[in-house]
Amino acid sequence: MKDRTLLMIPGPIEFEPAVLGALGAPTTSHVAPEFIEAFGQALERMRKVWLCPSGQPFVIAGSGTLAMDLAGANLIEPGDKALVLSTGVFGDRFEDLLTRYGAQVTVLRAPLGGTIPLEEVETTLKDGTYKLMAFTHVDTSTGVRVDPQPLGALGRKYDVLTVLDGVCSVAGEELRQEEWGIDVALTASQKAIGVPPGLALLVAGPRAMAAWRSRKTPVGNYYVDWSKWLPIMEAYEARKPSYFGTPAVNLVCALNVSLGQILNEGMEARFVRHRKLGQACQAAIGALGLSQVPTSHEYAAFTLTAPYYPENVTGQDLLPKVKVAGAILAGGLHPQIKARYFRIGHMGTTKPGDLLATIGALEAGLLGCGFKFEPGVGVAAAQRVLLG
Amino acid sequence: MKDRTLLMIPGPIEFEPAVLGALGAPTTSHVAPEFIEAFGQALERMRKVWLCPSGQPFVIAGSGTLAMDLAGANLIEPGDKALVLSTGVFGDRFEDLLTRYGAQVTVLRAPLGGTIPLEEVETTLKDGTYKLMAFTHVDTSTGVRVDPQPLGALGRKYDVLTVLDGVCSVAGEELRQEEWGIDVALTASQKAIGVPPGLALLVAGPRAMAAWRSRKTPVGNYYVDWSKWLPIMEAYEARKPSYFGTPAVNLVCALNVSLGQILNEGMEARFVRHRKLGQACQAAIGALGLSQVPTSHEYAAFTLTAPYYPENVTGQDLLPKVKVAGAILAGGLHPQIKARYFRIGHMGTTKPGDLLATIGALEAGLLGCGFKFEPGVGVAAAQRVLLG
Repeated sequence: MKDRTLLMIPGPIEFEPAVLGALGAPTTSHVAPEFIEAFGQALERMRKVWLCPSGQPFVIAGSGTLAMDLAGANLIEPGDKALVLSTGVFGDRFEDLLTRYGAQVTVLRAPLGGTIPLEEVETTLKDGTYKLMAFTHVDTSTGVRVDPQPLGALGRKYDVLTVLDGVCSVAGEELRQEEWGIDVALTASQKAIGVPPGLALLVAGPRAMAAWRSRKTPVGNYYVDWSKWLPIMEAYEARKPSYFGTPAVNLVCALNVSLGQILNEGMEARFVRHRKLGQACQAAIGALGLSQVPTSHEYAAFTLTAPYYPENVTGQDLLPKVKVAGAILAGGLHPQIKARYFRIGHMGTTKPGDLLATIGALEAGLLGCGFKFEPGVGVAAAQRVLLG
Repeated sequence: MKDRTLLMIPGPIEFEPAVLGALGAPTTSHVAPEFIEAFGQALERMRKVWLCPSGQPFVIAGSGTLAMDLAGANLIEPGDKALVLSTGVFGDRFEDLLTRYGAQVTVLRAPLGGTIPLEEVETTLKDGTYKLMAFTHVDTSTGVRVDPQPLGALGRKYDVLTVLDGVCSVAGEELRQEEWGIDVALTASQKAIGVPPGLALLVAGPRAMAAWRSRKTPVGNYYVDWSKWLPIMEAYEARKPSYFGTPAVNLVCALNVSLGQILNEGMEARFVRHRKLGQACQAAIGALGLSQVPTSHEYAAFTLTAPYYPENVTGQDLLPKVKVAGAILAGGLHPQIKARYFRIGHMGTTKPGDLLATIGALEAGLLGCGFKFEPGVGVAAAQRVLLG
C-alpha cells in the first residue's frame, strides 16, 4: 500500500518489520494456547509501559475514540459532573462524549496553542462536586502537551478521578501513571505504541475500578462495558481461554511484539529519546523561520510538531513536494487554523536518521515552494540537538 | 503464531495469503490517495456482497458485537419496542444489548437446536407496536440457520425494521438483503468475509437510515453513532479524505483484497459452494453416527456444523487428538450444552480438500478416543456430497 517514503504523520506511524510480520502471520484461534500466551504477555507488558503496576489493562478492538468511550461510558453516570481541560480538538471530543453519557460537563478551554493555568483548574475543582476530570496529554490537533503530574495531584486532593487521553503520548511522552496518581490512561495502537490502527488500549487504576464497581446504573454503552471485558482480561492474563467478543488476534500478536520492543528499549531511555526528537524537530522548524502552534516550547509535545506554513506557502503546494522528497507529513486538523499549519509525527519507531531525512525533505519542499532560507539550516539545527 | 494445522473453527477462519499479505504490508496514511481508493472500493464491494445496491455500508474498527451495537444503538430510542428471535447465545446477546439502549424487548426463544415458527413471529408482530425485529441468521452457538426471506417480508408487512445478525453468515449463506427487504445486515471480518478479526461491518438499507434520521433523542453510544461515521463513509466512497477516528488501515486494505476475491468467485457460486460444504460436513457427521445440535437438516447452517460428542468421548480428549491429526476445531459455546458438543467451521476460504482433511482428522481423533466406526465412512459421505 505504500512505497518507502517515510510516514511521519502523528499516527499511523512507521511500524517495525517484526510488528508487521506478526500482523500478517497466519491467524490462530482466539483460544489457542500460543495466542492466550501472547495476549496474557501483552497485558502484563502494558502495566510496565504505562508504569502502573496496580492497574487493570484493557485491550479492545476499536480506534482511539473507542478508548475514550471505554473510559467515559464506564465512569460516568447520568448527572455526574465532569471537568474537561481542552487543549484542542480531542478535548472538545471528550466534552461531546461525556455529555452523551449524561455528564454535566464544564470545559476549561485553553487559548489556541496554549494550556490552562493550574490555578484555574484548582479553583474549579474546589467546589467539590466533580467526579471526573479528563485532559489530553498531547492534543494531536495542536501539538500542545499538558503536564499530567500536577493534575494527578489535584485529582487526589479533591477526590476527582483523572482520565488522561494519551492517544498521542503513551509510550512516547513521560508518563508515570501510578506514581502521578492518574486513574485512567488510554491510547490507541497506531501512535507511539507502534502497532497498526485497530486497538483501543486503556489502563485503569484501583480508584477508577472502584468507581465503576460502585455504579448505580448500568453502563450506557454495551460494547465497552467493563463488566463484559474484565473477566476476559483476567482470564487471558491467568492464561485461561475466555470469550466475549473475538479479540483482534493478529493485532494483539503485533501488540505483544511491539510492547516487547518498547520494554527492551526501556521506558526511561524511551522518554529521553522522544524528548530529544521533539526538541530537535522544533529546533529545526525554528531555524527555518517557521512559527509553531504551541505558543511556548515549554508545552510543545515531543511526539509531534505543528508548524505554521510560511507566508505564501500552502499545504496543497508544500506537502506533495515534501512527499516526493521522501516524507509524508499531515495537514492541519484544528478547524480554526486547519489550512494554516501542518504536522510532523516523530514518535514510536522514529530514529534520529528518520528525523533528519524528514527535515531534509521539508527543506526540499520549502525550496520548491520558493521559500527563502539557507539550505541545511534545519537539519543542522536538528542534528545539534540530537548529538547534544 | 500458528503452524500449518487447518483452522476449522467458526471464526477466525483460514485466511488467504494475499489477504494476510495486505494486512502485514507497511501502513500508509489514512488519508493517502491509495488508501482512500482501497477504502472506497471496499465500500462499493460490500454493497455487491450484501446484494444491497441501495444500502449504506459502514466499516468500523471493532468486533462483531460492535456491529450489533452499530445497529442497536442507532435504531433504538428509549421506550421503543423490539422483538428478538433467539436461536442461541447471540440472540440472547441482542436482547441484552437492545435493553441497554432502552428498548422494551420481547424475546421469542427457540428450543435448543430449533427455530421459531413463522406464525408465532407474525402473531407477535400483529399487535403493531414493534419498531424493530432482530434475528441471528446463523447462531454460531447452535449452528441453527434462520430463513431471512419470510422475516424480511413480515417486517415490510407490519412496518417493522429487520436487523439480521449475519456474523456467521454474510458472504457464506445465501443473503439477498435488498430483494428480501432486510433493513440492516451486519457481520464481522473474521468469518466468511475472510479477514482477520478487528472490523465490524454493516449495511443499512434506506428504511433503516430513515428511522435513524428521524430519531428524537441522541444515539446512546458515542463511538458507533452513525452521525459521526456516515460523512466519513460517504467521503471515502467519493474518494475524498476525511477523519473521525483513524480507520484500521491495514485491516481495511485486507478487507478490500478479500471482497475482491469474493466477487471474483461470484455470490451465486459462493452460496452453492457453502451449501455443498455444509451438506457434505453434515453428511459425514451423520455417517459417523454423531448427532447434531440443529434438530433438523432443514435449518442446519452451511457455514458451521455442531455435532455432539459420542457417548464416553469428551472434548478434552477428542479436540487435541484432532488437532494433532491436522485440524483445529472449536468446543461448545451454548451454556446449556457447552461440554457436550463441538463446532466445525467451513466457510469463506474453505475448499473441498480442507473439508476432507478436517473430516479425516476428526476420524483419526475419534479412533484415538476409542469410538467405534468404519474408518473412511465420514470422508466418503462428505465426498459423495462434494462430487454430487
